[in-house]
Amino acid sequence: MRGNDKRSAMSEKLDKHILKNGMVILGEPMEAVESVAFGFMLPAGAALLPEGCCGAGTVIADWIFRGAGDKNNRELGDALDGLGLHRASSVGSSHITIGAALEAENIAEAIKLYADIILQASLKEDQFELVRQLAIDGVRALDDAPRQKVMLKLRERFYPSPLGRSTLGEIAELKTLTAEKTKQIIKNNFNLSQTIFAFAGKYDFDAIVSQIKNLFETDQQEPLKSFTLGSKAGKYTHLRNDGAQVHIGLMTETVKPTDENYYNARVAVSVLSGGMSARLFTEVREKRGLCYAVGAQYHGLKEASGIACYAGTTPDKAQETLDCVMAEFNRLADGISKEEIERAKVGLKSALVLQSESSSSRAGGIGSDYYMLGRVRSLDEIKNKIEATSVDSVLGFLRNNKFKDFTVVTIGPKEVHPPSADKS
Amino acid sequence: MRGNDKRSAMSEKLDKHILKNGMVILGEPMEAVESVAFGFMLPAGAALLPEGCCGAGTVIADWIFRGAGDKNNRELGDALDGLGLHRASSVGSSHITIGAALEAENIAEAIKLYADIILQASLKEDQFELVRQLAIDGVRALDDAPRQKVMLKLRERFYPSPLGRSTLGEIAELKTLTAEKTKQIIKNNFNLSQTIFAFAGKYDFDAIVSQIKNLFETDQQEPLKSFTLGSKAGKYTHLRNDGAQVHIGLMTETVKPTDENYYNARVAVSVLSGGMSARLFTEVREKRGLCYAVGAQYHGLKEASGIACYAGTTPDKAQETLDCVMAEFNRLADGISKEEIERAKVGLKSALVLQSESSSSRAGGIGSDYYMLGRVRSLDEIKNKIEATSVDSVLGFLRNNKFKDFTVVTIGPKEVHPPSADKS
Repeated sequence: MRGNDKRSAMSEKLDKHILKNGMVILGEPMEAVESVAFGFMLPAGAALLPEGCCGAGTVIADWIFRGAGDKNNRELGDALDGLGLHRASSVGSSHITIGAALEAENIAEAIKLYADIILQASLKEDQFELVRQLAIDGVRALDDAPRQKVMLKLRERFYPSPLGRSTLGEIAELKTLTAEKTKQIIKNNFNLSQTIFAFAGKYDFDAIVSQIKNLFETDQQEPLKSFTLGSKAGKYTHLRNDGAQVHIGLMTETVKPTDENYYNARVAVSVLSGGMSARLFTEVREKRGLCYAVGAQYHGLKEASGIACYAGTTPDKAQETLDCVMAEFNRLADGISKEEIERAKVGLKSALVLQSESSSSRAGGIGSDYYMLGRVRSLDEIKNKIEATSVDSVLGFLRNNKFKDFTVVTIGPKEVHPPSADKS
Repeated sequence: MRGNDKRSAMSEKLDKHILKNGMVILGEPMEAVESVAFGFMLPAGAALLPEGCCGAGTVIADWIFRGAGDKNNRELGDALDGLGLHRASSVGSSHITIGAALEAENIAEAIKLYADIILQASLKEDQFELVRQLAIDGVRALDDAPRQKVMLKLRERFYPSPLGRSTLGEIAELKTLTAEKTKQIIKNNFNLSQTIFAFAGKYDFDAIVSQIKNLFETDQQEPLKSFTLGSKAGKYTHLRNDGAQVHIGLMTETVKPTDENYYNARVAVSVLSGGMSARLFTEVREKRGLCYAVGAQYHGLKEASGIACYAGTTPDKAQETLDCVMAEFNRLADGISKEEIERAKVGLKSALVLQSESSSSRAGGIGSDYYMLGRVRSLDEIKNKIEATSVDSVLGFLRNNKFKDFTVVTIGPKEVHPPSADKS
């Protein structure tokens, strides 16, 4: 039960340094790779934006790359591509993360360019208009991607506002967004005291710390902007479209990553949807052929967490699909076999091994851990915690935390009946 | 020019063994990983199916996993998930590839299960009906994913038949597909003499060869089913839908991976679309704000290859977007700066480094190389070939191989005018 003794490829080492202004530097060295992946987590996620600016994150993540420091738009793009950077920007609920994966030898040059982008973006007015219009087009494009849209809408309805705000934006708010207002958001939200710089792969930690200090260290500590949680939207929302399919999104509350039952929740989700032998797949897809795609996953924010489920099906099978999915959630607490728990644990542990071999996964993982937990878990810690779960611990957790309050969003030509109060 | 001398993480070692029946075993060892990724490439891709069975590949890739050897559907799923396998099946033009990534210590158990799936799938009639219906639902679901659909339709129109056949299937043909017919296809197309088993990561090659020999070696050599190439479909196809966007797919012929100009073609595509400083992105998206998404990539089959481009835009900007994209293709031969070529080369080389660190990428890469070229290129060979290209070699190639015959497919509420014969 104590885990095996063989050498683990999972690194136990974490490099960490905190600047005087509170900016956090985290690195995880990886053996035998020639690449490094990094991300600057800037506290400018959708939930941290002022009211009426939904979508400003998407605009900012594009605008800041259109010229910075002494380089115009064209020169900056050329310089980044000249380093062979594979860029990865994302807008989340809490952060805008801008980062990349690249050959290790180019990291210093890359950091220099990203420091300009964060601290000295040109933010030209003419570029703003182009960027804002593209952001609007991007939201419109969601109408042609109902599978993505249903999950965005689901998070919006499930989380108390402003946690679930659309990370892509709202057209009406994008239309009234101005360059001035957006500059103000950048000024307020690119708060270095609350910024995390995380990287994994091959690097020289001392060299990176010294470079980051020179570029980002200041004496002042600024607090994080706070926000108050509002109410949740309705339990059931149907968005009509004339597509061929009904897209069902369903979400229910569960414990946060800081909770002692976190690993029991993860194993429970894995019993439901961890693989092709998991319940949703076998019961909903394989046995009954109700839908071509179905799956559930844990979705955690710092303030609230849930289990989110997607199912895509035909209009005539939509009601049965929703009923069947909800029945699977509800009967989970009735009993789980030892074999199911074992498979769920094996699946989670092997996913961990695969993640441990990707510099991008690890850079994201250590940054997210630090933000959510205030510390970074080693992969061995996670592995041992998964190992320590059992039929009893998972069932005990499920029985004390019954699923209730399902939030459901559907997109398609036909409404389904939302769950009634009594189970099944 | 000769490349640098520092130690390269790119492995130069390839393990190879060919069974008496011709089945090829290929392995690439990777340092410091605990995982292994593998794929069985079975010669049952869409182009190799008999007429009137389009979609049988999707059905087969699902059906063979529903019970095999002494295990029923449920037991097989449980056994696979019990190994912590992360499955990856795909249906391509030439192959159905079934594989997975997993912890290295479980590879022998995994191979045993996959041998049953390939050689002794149960193929029960009742499962067939469920699988066939899900395949039909999957094709219908494409109507809600026009971005994917336009590229599938594009390949169908661009390649001479049957090369571009939809890998998902055609509803009419799926409706008439029978279990008997599908069993016959499996019998004819799961031809071990033409099967490639490729893996990368941590493994014991001798142990794997001995296991594969026991499971798959026979004395007979069977030839590959041949097919004759038909004609191409029309140059322009518009599929009307009432979505919010116009999805544009455009494809034009270029040299195959076996051609001496292959690397010049790859660098040319990279100048066009290798990064955010590449021409399509800067000219079409950044400067003019014509579309929220645009990109081109090389798409190679053994028999024919092309450059495929996608652009997603609003109906009012669709015509200008298509004109602008085509203009960028056509003016490529007019001139390319030294800096553009350098950035394109750096981008391709750094992508190579990142791929070299993923066991799944490498397993796919060596299998595909062997099929396309009859041998596996080392990553250093690829790197040196990229390095050897120049402004002169790329422009020389482009001028001797002018783009012509653009195939265009659009999906959306509004038609665009296909390109006229004269350029621009």
